[in-house]
Amino acid sequence: MTPKKTLVIIGGGFGGLNLARKVDKRLWDVVVVDRNNYHSFPPLFYQVASSGLEPASISFPLRRELRRKCYRGCRYHLGTVSSIDTERKTVRTRYETLRYDALVIAAGTTNNYFGIHDLYKYVNTIKSTTEAIRTRNEVLDRLERASLCRDEEERRRLLTFVVVGGGPAGVEIAGALGELKRFVIRREYPLIRPEEMRVILVEGNDALLRAMGPRSSADALEGLRQLMVEVRLGVTMKGYDGRNITFADGTSIGTTLVVWTAGITGVPFEITGSDVRAARGARFVVDELCRVEGLDDVYAIGDIALMRTAKYPEGHPQLAQVAIQQGEALAQTLSGRQRPFVYRDKGTMATIGRNRAVVDMGRVHLRGRLAWFAWLFVHLMSLLGVRNRTVVFINWVWNYFTFSGSLRLFFRPDRYPLRNYWDE
Amino acid sequence: MTPKKTLVIIGGGFGGLNLARKVDKRLWDVVVVDRNNYHSFPPLFYQVASSGLEPASISFPLRRELRRKCYRGCRYHLGTVSSIDTERKTVRTRYETLRYDALVIAAGTTNNYFGIHDLYKYVNTIKSTTEAIRTRNEVLDRLERASLCRDEEERRRLLTFVVVGGGPAGVEIAGALGELKRFVIRREYPLIRPEEMRVILVEGNDALLRAMGPRSSADALEGLRQLMVEVRLGVTMKGYDGRNITFADGTSIGTTLVVWTAGITGVPFEITGSDVRAARGARFVVDELCRVEGLDDVYAIGDIALMRTAKYPEGHPQLAQVAIQQGEALAQTLSGRQRPFVYRDKGTMATIGRNRAVVDMGRVHLRGRLAWFAWLFVHLMSLLGVRNRTVVFINWVWNYFTFSGSLRLFFRPDRYPLRNYWDE
Repeated sequence: MTPKKTLVIIGGGFGGLNLARKVDKRLWDVVVVDRNNYHSFPPLFYQVASSGLEPASISFPLRRELRRKCYRGCRYHLGTVSSIDTERKTVRTRYETLRYDALVIAAGTTNNYFGIHDLYKYVNTIKSTTEAIRTRNEVLDRLERASLCRDEEERRRLLTFVVVGGGPAGVEIAGALGELKRFVIRREYPLIRPEEMRVILVEGNDALLRAMGPRSSADALEGLRQLMVEVRLGVTMKGYDGRNITFADGTSIGTTLVVWTAGITGVPFEITGSDVRAARGARFVVDELCRVEGLDDVYAIGDIALMRTAKYPEGHPQLAQVAIQQGEALAQTLSGRQRPFVYRDKGTMATIGRNRAVVDMGRVHLRGRLAWFAWLFVHLMSLLGVRNRTVVFINWVWNYFTFSGSLRLFFRPDRYPLRNYWDE
Repeated sequence: MTPKKTLVIIGGGFGGLNLARKVDKRLWDVVVVDRNNYHSFPPLFYQVASSGLEPASISFPLRRELRRKCYRGCRYHLGTVSSIDTERKTVRTRYETLRYDALVIAAGTTNNYFGIHDLYKYVNTIKSTTEAIRTRNEVLDRLERASLCRDEEERRRLLTFVVVGGGPAGVEIAGALGELKRFVIRREYPLIRPEEMRVILVEGNDALLRAMGPRSSADALEGLRQLMVEVRLGVTMKGYDGRNITFADGTSIGTTLVVWTAGITGVPFEITGSDVRAARGARFVVDELCRVEGLDDVYAIGDIALMRTAKYPEGHPQLAQVAIQQGEALAQTLSGRQRPFVYRDKGTMATIGRNRAVVDMGRVHLRGRLAWFAWLFVHLMSLLGVRNRTVVFINWVWNYFTFSGSLRLFFRPDRYPLRNYWDE
């Protein structure tokens, strides 16, 4: 028997975990490196941000998952990989240098601010669990402050919520904020009139959910309008300073909360020992076997990989399904059964609000309550861990019948800086 | 009909909420001011700190609670009361000044560091939800770092956990850390040998759980020893600098995590317009009607009140039951049915670990599994909200059978400082 080789996987997301699970552990010692000690579930971040679910329900400890039999031979290391040395075949985190025989970059994406001045300091984002928690806290903070504020202008500013970006994340968070306005304010904030709260969704293009079909775009627009969300299409944001958001057409709106969902980019790495750099959107160009072009024994899968095919000349959509299927294909390839990747499109979906979602599966288009139940079911079943599924199910049923908002909790960070936390 | 008067209650804890609920709202407009937007459940903070429960399960939004019919006439204001002006009859938070006709101080207690130099900077505490979250994160951080650390001395330091204080909080968190060592390390941290992890409980007196009976003290000692917790009685801590804890006898231990449960003190207030100051432990001396001695129309209940009676010459124990019953008594008094407070002792309990707790009710002493189930039942029933009770129940049943630790989640604070959060 040949000695086992070391496979280092950067990222314990959909792609990385599926690869770790399915690759042949008789051939590979697998190390999953992730900056968080948990697998997270990005499709539901917006529900954390809008107090619909608690973060623990959509997070699953990686060590807990790796205890399962199908992962035997996999280890987890906490750490943020900052640099890759393709000559020495090592990756570095703050606390160690790991040697690899094969490396898989499955680190996903983060927010792209397109270089807009200081934007990252002022906007809220929902691309990670902690970002979603922060957004939740800030939304609740604005409502509390508005409750006590008697200055009319300041009050209006505190109660104006702007979402930038009309993709699924933007539509979903705008819908959730619309429901807050429509269903929650009257019951729980007696000092705020619901009509004082404004939710504005801004999209640079002329349609919402452009990655889906035109019927989904239209349904989303109609659904958001019924939730009293003001949708502004064809409007480009220029800047935001924490008090006013300005647009390319010269207009501006006073607001103290902007949720930025308008851009993503691959998580950045420093690469030494090679001239290869990530392509547009910081994605790594890969061939059909997920090999990063120009590098040996380095692969990329999921949102951070850019595989140009005849059907997808600009690369695949950055969706969980692509990552999962690429993890599977690469597992086969690394286990000695070379398998070029072919994406099987299972459809896309987005939720707008209570009883209202859109689903596109090939030519089939679902909308309204049926689509909404389909959305709930698919997302519930995709969660890791029976406990999490149970708790999420209970929360959803509860909220559906009670509009209860038992999770509208504002956990302020502790007063003293956390001493020993790992750096970025 | 006489115009209604304003009753301001500082603190939405056990005492404050029970008072708000039961006071006659035909006589009083009630304003509950709390620095958090949720009611929290201190008896289970240690389970948050030890990854047994998620914080949302033991927190309940105050606005959600105040929607209930029995609270009609009560409002919630977010804010930390910093000063009380007894002459003008106002209290101040950062964002407003509230006028009162009657004021109830029900703000509870916080950590007391007894002036030990810089101690607050280095120790972990579990006196609030956010403190418990921080402790959870730091425990998980130490295990991850130890996993990757090859320096033997540093590794020992990272894996040494010291709990200071042998009251219920100290015993409970030490027991939970003992279970981590005993049940979790082997399964989930393959690079750590369980015997490398040390849990040390330090108590200055000669017995644990001194507020309970001697049989409970003995059972707690025995139970912790079975969980391989090293209990050191009669040992006083002198200082801690983040790397070494030193004791009065001159010895020291290298550790990077100290949980401080050895002292509490009333939440501090600045009082103007009067010479009255809080007594020992920053508690306000009250008479049997909960009136603060020397002040007009100011009352105090719960942990922050000090009522000296024949049976309790040093004041009542600082327990939820006292606060709840004082809230009830004061509600009667403020509703025109003057009722001096008499404490009905329903017993005290503490849990040590799985299947192991102690309960003292008058002369009855329970221990072991029976006490543990009693403990679970009483705590479950005391939680606010059916959803929370359901979720906690599921978590407990799950953990009991699986030791699963699905909540061992390390939610790092967001990278950028939170801009608009309320100050202390």
